[in-house]
Amino acid sequence: MALPKRIVELSERFSSLPGIGPKLSNRIALYLTITNKTLADRMIRSLGSAMDEIGQCKNCFNVTDNGELCHICNDERRDENKLLVVETPLDLYTIEDTSEYNGLYHVLNGLISPVNGIGPDDITINQLVSRLEANPDISEVIFGLNPTIEGDSTIMYISEEMRKKGVSANLTRLATGIPTGGSIEYMSSQTISDSLKRRDKVS
Amino acid sequence: MALPKRIVELSERFSSLPGIGPKLSNRIALYLTITNKTLADRMIRSLGSAMDEIGQCKNCFNVTDNGELCHICNDERRDENKLLVVETPLDLYTIEDTSEYNGLYHVLNGLISPVNGIGPDDITINQLVSRLEANPDISEVIFGLNPTIEGDSTIMYISEEMRKKGVSANLTRLATGIPTGGSIEYMSSQTISDSLKRRDKVS
Repeated sequence: MALPKRIVELSERFSSLPGIGPKLSNRIALYLTITNKTLADRMIRSLGSAMDEIGQCKNCFNVTDNGELCHICNDERRDENKLLVVETPLDLYTIEDTSEYNGLYHVLNGLISPVNGIGPDDITINQLVSRLEANPDISEVIFGLNPTIEGDSTIMYISEEMRKKGVSANLTRLATGIPTGGSIEYMSSQTISDSLKRRDKVS
Repeated sequence: MALPKRIVELSERFSSLPGIGPKLSNRIALYLTITNKTLADRMIRSLGSAMDEIGQCKNCFNVTDNGELCHICNDERRDENKLLVVETPLDLYTIEDTSEYNGLYHVLNGLISPVNGIGPDDITINQLVSRLEANPDISEVIFGLNPTIEGDSTIMYISEEMRKKGVSANLTRLATGIPTGGSIEYMSSQTISDSLKRRDKVS
């Protein structure tokens, strides 16, 4: 005894999305076919428009609805000597929201993760290294990657590739430690241990 | 500085779904437009087919791809003297999976909830009472509703409507208590207190 075939099929589509399990996807499939058909109609149209209009920037691989280059690569006021490497466009916009950074970006669209079958050629590492070779004015590469095993491995791999190709930019990464406003009580012992090792002088 | 308009629009559609917040919906919108366009295509088609083919049973309001009546209402082997009232088709299929019940169902498609603006006329209570009036053979109405304020209010309202219309079926509800295999340590004090009051004789 099961749900109608079309609901099962729709539910499977939703459970293929990040962050949605089988129970929630069943609820969503019923919600869209019975409770809120207007939303289902709108979703069909929005998916179609987004697929037609959204592309990736040829230079930095950020999302864009702006043609070949995104609005950041097109903006002549950005500091072309700095390049900040992020995993996803969402990380890019989170950093942009601080208004603390005025350089360029490079979106990897993933991190090296052998466990998940993601190697260096599955993300935009080759394009990053070529970009650095072609633009010797870039004097600092800032890694804005999550401080995880995947993030650290990706930084190590990219540094090694840059060294092989003779790219000499300075390499930096976002500071790790206890988040501002955070509670020591809720931090992992790895975080505490890291922030002890990297302790800052009280000025 | 924001994400492209079409991504924001798509993300808003997903955040209107049950169980999906704004951070997750942003991730999903980017996933569908950049990482997995095949899934976006399939989702458009599945949504269309489900909307075309899925309807509600005219009798019990279960989902159906089977015409006017669902496969349960069409099944002559079901016990027509019992009617089990559920909130959603998902609850119906969860009960069907036990194979412990062989009667008919009635799907309310919601519960009375003044806080959320849901009154008796927004769900299928009138249709339930009419159905009971038209079928005096139904001798037991079993409420399979969540043991919450909304569930309890809905049971009280329906019982009162049945009394007014002179419907005399026996009313029962699923037992409440500690779930089989559950841990007392993790139960709310309300659950413990209820299951103390309703304690069963050890046979």
